[in-house]
Amino acid sequence: MLAYLNGEYLPLEDAKLHVSDLAIQRGYGIFDFFRVSEGVPLYLEDYLNRFYRSAETMGLEDVIARPALKDIVTQLIRRNGVPEAGMKLILTGGYSPDAYHPVKGNFLVSQHNLVLPAAAQMNEGISVITHPYRREIPEVKTINYIMGVWLLKKMHDAHASDVLYHRDGLVSEFPRCNFFLVTRQGTLVTPANHILHGITRMRVLEIASEFCPVEVRDLRLEEVYDAAEAFLTSTTKSILPIVKVDDRPVGAGKPGPVTNALRDLLRQRERAEYQKPQLA
Amino acid sequence: MLAYLNGEYLPLEDAKLHVSDLAIQRGYGIFDFFRVSEGVPLYLEDYLNRFYRSAETMGLEDVIARPALKDIVTQLIRRNGVPEAGMKLILTGGYSPDAYHPVKGNFLVSQHNLVLPAAAQMNEGISVITHPYRREIPEVKTINYIMGVWLLKKMHDAHASDVLYHRDGLVSEFPRCNFFLVTRQGTLVTPANHILHGITRMRVLEIASEFCPVEVRDLRLEEVYDAAEAFLTSTTKSILPIVKVDDRPVGAGKPGPVTNALRDLLRQRERAEYQKPQLA
Repeated sequence: MLAYLNGEYLPLEDAKLHVSDLAIQRGYGIFDFFRVSEGVPLYLEDYLNRFYRSAETMGLEDVIARPALKDIVTQLIRRNGVPEAGMKLILTGGYSPDAYHPVKGNFLVSQHNLVLPAAAQMNEGISVITHPYRREIPEVKTINYIMGVWLLKKMHDAHASDVLYHRDGLVSEFPRCNFFLVTRQGTLVTPANHILHGITRMRVLEIASEFCPVEVRDLRLEEVYDAAEAFLTSTTKSILPIVKVDDRPVGAGKPGPVTNALRDLLRQRERAEYQKPQLA
Repeated sequence: MLAYLNGEYLPLEDAKLHVSDLAIQRGYGIFDFFRVSEGVPLYLEDYLNRFYRSAETMGLEDVIARPALKDIVTQLIRRNGVPEAGMKLILTGGYSPDAYHPVKGNFLVSQHNLVLPAAAQMNEGISVITHPYRREIPEVKTINYIMGVWLLKKMHDAHASDVLYHRDGLVSEFPRCNFFLVTRQGTLVTPANHILHGITRMRVLEIASEFCPVEVRDLRLEEVYDAAEAFLTSTTKSILPIVKVDDRPVGAGKPGPVTNALRDLLRQRERAEYQKPQLA
């Protein structure tokens, strides 16, 4: 698979960074990730908006211009010939002479085979646990997953598929996904604050607003235990039902009707998306 | 300068990692850093103890054995011929096939010229600001400095030299240094919890215990504003006086007598250290 690194197209296996890069020295960098479906980068403008916002918030300057970035995406899709894929952008703090102050970043674009959730997870839902934590600059897609990766063992030991962060009584997000629940009264609720603003989350909010009452607000952990339905959203996972939280069943302990309906609507929305030209 | 990477000695400028490394993908890795003085790695066993503890806590397995690591340190000191230097160990999450689960880590040892604090900072002390934050797994020396690096601009704008973290009313540490204060009653206090256990901090506690009353406990932010003296400790900075916190003078607004006395005692202790053989 061909990748792009600092102005050069090269085989992904040859893409290397010197150890003075600030990602290696200080975990300092941002990234983004979007899907390519039928050769079309889905919701590309939304992902690029977020990517440039992340770069700006983190003080990463001299970032590649948007038209050039879009051209790289087009080139990689065309030259790799993998119409169903994930595309990852990484921008690091660069080769910092003092291993602390960011300089002009190293910029990588790489395409990857998609690993989608197993059919059983989609159809039967997943179990999750909770953990007290809040990402440090949650609105930015930094590369810092120290906590998420560290919690893999705890998740595995609990036979859980993901871990929902909460702090000061409020739930926020999963390491790589957003959280939604449906109350017993049928209202869709998702946390407003201390989260990464997922593109799939945004799509679900757009779709749901014509389907059921929606609230975007602070959400207490107790409300999760009392929910009728729950699900997570992400670029690769789309909508994935949650049927157990901390060993307590969510609602009836199986994927609920609102969750399933929203998933179908989301699929329809996506299909419409990649049938229109994106990079005109 | 020669470095060591995964079994090989090579010029530092040739030390590269493939972009699939978990430090680049997820900011996942640990490190440690010690000083070499007169060709002797100072307090090496303490730093190695911490390095192996960090690796274990973060679930990094298959780590290089201690005798082999000590041999690399000796080799680099001998072959580089730089008797006054810093030595950095970095162990990453490795080339993770799914860019999330840690595998056998990449291990780097690199030697660097020391950048010591300016004489003016040592003699006149520094200004610091405070910021609400607590590192996620504070007892581990992870590579995650997203917050510390991000705060450089805020520090710079405030004409400050460092930033003291606090949360829930308790101060903890600086991004790369520990914190001490001397109360108006002459007691030395340093935070007990939510910190990285610095080796220089440990040395200062050993030395101070024969010099003045010492308390290792939770420390409230208000106590900082009310302190008679304050200083930070780190491997490169040793003891550095703090004369201003959030624009309020600490005590008389100049380095205090306890701070200066401890600094002299610490220097004597170090001198004794590198006059005895370390890697016998």
